[in-house]
Amino acid sequence: MDIAIIFGASSYEHEISIVSAITLKSVVKSHNLKFIFIDSNREFYLIDNSDMKSKFFSSKEYLKKGKKLKIDKEGFYIGGLFGSKKVDFDVALNLIHGRDGEDGKVASMLEFFNIKYIGPRVEASAISYNKLYTKLFAESLGVKVIDYKVLNSSDSRDVELTYPVIIKPLRLGSSIGVSIVKSKEDLDYALDVAFEFDNQVLIEPFIEGIKEYNLAGSLTKDWQLSIIEEPAKEEFLDFDKKYLDFARDERVQEANIDEALKNKIRESFKSIYNPVFNGAIIRCDFFVIDDEVYLNEINPIPGSMANYLFEDFNNLLSLVATNLPTEKNIKIEYMYINNIQKAKGKA
Amino acid sequence: MDIAIIFGASSYEHEISIVSAITLKSVVKSHNLKFIFIDSNREFYLIDNSDMKSKFFSSKEYLKKGKKLKIDKEGFYIGGLFGSKKVDFDVALNLIHGRDGEDGKVASMLEFFNIKYIGPRVEASAISYNKLYTKLFAESLGVKVIDYKVLNSSDSRDVELTYPVIIKPLRLGSSIGVSIVKSKEDLDYALDVAFEFDNQVLIEPFIEGIKEYNLAGSLTKDWQLSIIEEPAKEEFLDFDKKYLDFARDERVQEANIDEALKNKIRESFKSIYNPVFNGAIIRCDFFVIDDEVYLNEINPIPGSMANYLFEDFNNLLSLVATNLPTEKNIKIEYMYINNIQKAKGKA
Repeated sequence: MDIAIIFGASSYEHEISIVSAITLKSVVKSHNLKFIFIDSNREFYLIDNSDMKSKFFSSKEYLKKGKKLKIDKEGFYIGGLFGSKKVDFDVALNLIHGRDGEDGKVASMLEFFNIKYIGPRVEASAISYNKLYTKLFAESLGVKVIDYKVLNSSDSRDVELTYPVIIKPLRLGSSIGVSIVKSKEDLDYALDVAFEFDNQVLIEPFIEGIKEYNLAGSLTKDWQLSIIEEPAKEEFLDFDKKYLDFARDERVQEANIDEALKNKIRESFKSIYNPVFNGAIIRCDFFVIDDEVYLNEINPIPGSMANYLFEDFNNLLSLVATNLPTEKNIKIEYMYINNIQKAKGKA
Repeated sequence: MDIAIIFGASSYEHEISIVSAITLKSVVKSHNLKFIFIDSNREFYLIDNSDMKSKFFSSKEYLKKGKKLKIDKEGFYIGGLFGSKKVDFDVALNLIHGRDGEDGKVASMLEFFNIKYIGPRVEASAISYNKLYTKLFAESLGVKVIDYKVLNSSDSRDVELTYPVIIKPLRLGSSIGVSIVKSKEDLDYALDVAFEFDNQVLIEPFIEGIKEYNLAGSLTKDWQLSIIEEPAKEEFLDFDKKYLDFARDERVQEANIDEALKNKIRESFKSIYNPVFNGAIIRCDFFVIDDEVYLNEINPIPGSMANYLFEDFNNLLSLVATNLPTEKNIKIEYMYINNIQKAKGKA
């Protein structure tokens, strides 16, 4: 299958998207990959496979060697929309982490222009991009979440909190702007940092040494669930660490937990996934406290699609690509306008 | 100010968007309007003001007389992207009702291509387009909503309900697929109808003769709130009725309720609006039961922007257009890639 990987874009995670795309190139061997780069200026470029090295982008070599593309009906075009050449592929894959990719913008454009794609749809993006909506959504499905408080930049900062807390910009996908605050004295600074990135922040209790488990998957004809991983413990992932994390391409060990807990995690994943995330390969990060499962976050486009958690990632891509949700076809027959014209005696 | 009205698109409300655009033309006198039509095939056309008549679209005359446009960076272009002419305007206005307009797709494209626009942003669209998310969102803000149940098309239909109930597709903006069900015998048929339009439906108690109040507004430097209207009572709006409703252009009477209740309605509106709906003129429809205010729905792009509720709609457009939210500018300096290159001794 020919898969067009779309990556980069105007996002704080632009660079890790490049790393993610390069990783995918080394992992996906049974498909023919094409690479469509969106630069920070939101221009599209077709990148030759042999140029898929991080320096090609950081040195801006892509400006000279990449082929400029335009998005339009049914695909991407080289050299002008009127009398231009279409880039050939069977399915696109949205690998843009953070803004543009995970906030629903690129999904919207692919859908509008009727381009088949693997990735979260607009609504799924909006739900997972905003940490408050993720919480509300999970709770509505009976999936537990950690307590939280949302603060707007215009709100009073005089809030009652039990420290330590973790402060996160409400909308960023990465760890940027995230702080652990151990006492009231440090709150102001952490809020200043977070409000640099968003006008709303999320405040949660920070629970030292909490058990975390990750599960990725997709629903095709059947459930395609990965193994459950217990990621290496860190106080929390900083951006450098996360950056390297997106280059992972080796399979990891399954977490050493009992089957009952695994099943609780799987059931929580399924409730969250279906039907909102249809078409995407997502990773959910869960916390476990006293044998109860809590959703931490939904990664609707995980770093290199969490390939390292799957037995056969190449086959997974085929299964997802052949089971994509499709938009309803809306026929417009001008029935109402015609009726009104008739009533007015104009038809 | 030059305002480009974007209307039509691939939506069940395509026709009422045309009516809405024609109405706006008659209402907006202090601005210079341009009209950008998206046809059911999702092609863009610049329409001459003198052609803004419903028959021009229903007869497909636009295919011959409209000027085909392409969307690209900073605007819409006539005649090809490479060496083409830009359509001149100060701000776009998203007047697409239903799919494409209210689900965040067109907002996404305008934002991606850096085109200034009046209308809900992607996230606001996702929240108001899905009736479940609207409920969760309102509840999280302390705004009451009517009880509800969500049913997936794969779920058992054997649900305990107290009749009458109202059944709505979870995601459509219009009254399409909506039924009032008076007894268990009629449930199956109503669900069949609703599932024609969505794979999830919302079930709510139907409360005969409930008091409804509408309030529209926007937050610019200050709150710009409309009068509160008590819309004419119908069992509920069917599509024909709603269709005519979108052509309203005469100011209406303020609802005859006391100031305390008005203030409750206004406060609920403000909680919902700010900050998620910044940049848009929205209308919220509320129910009042025993002096308590309940959110019924959020119309993020109401029929002709609810002009008939405002004292000076022309001035409102100016105020909104000059107070639009802007995206953060993300600078990408390839700091991480450069560091890694250095560490590898490649730089």
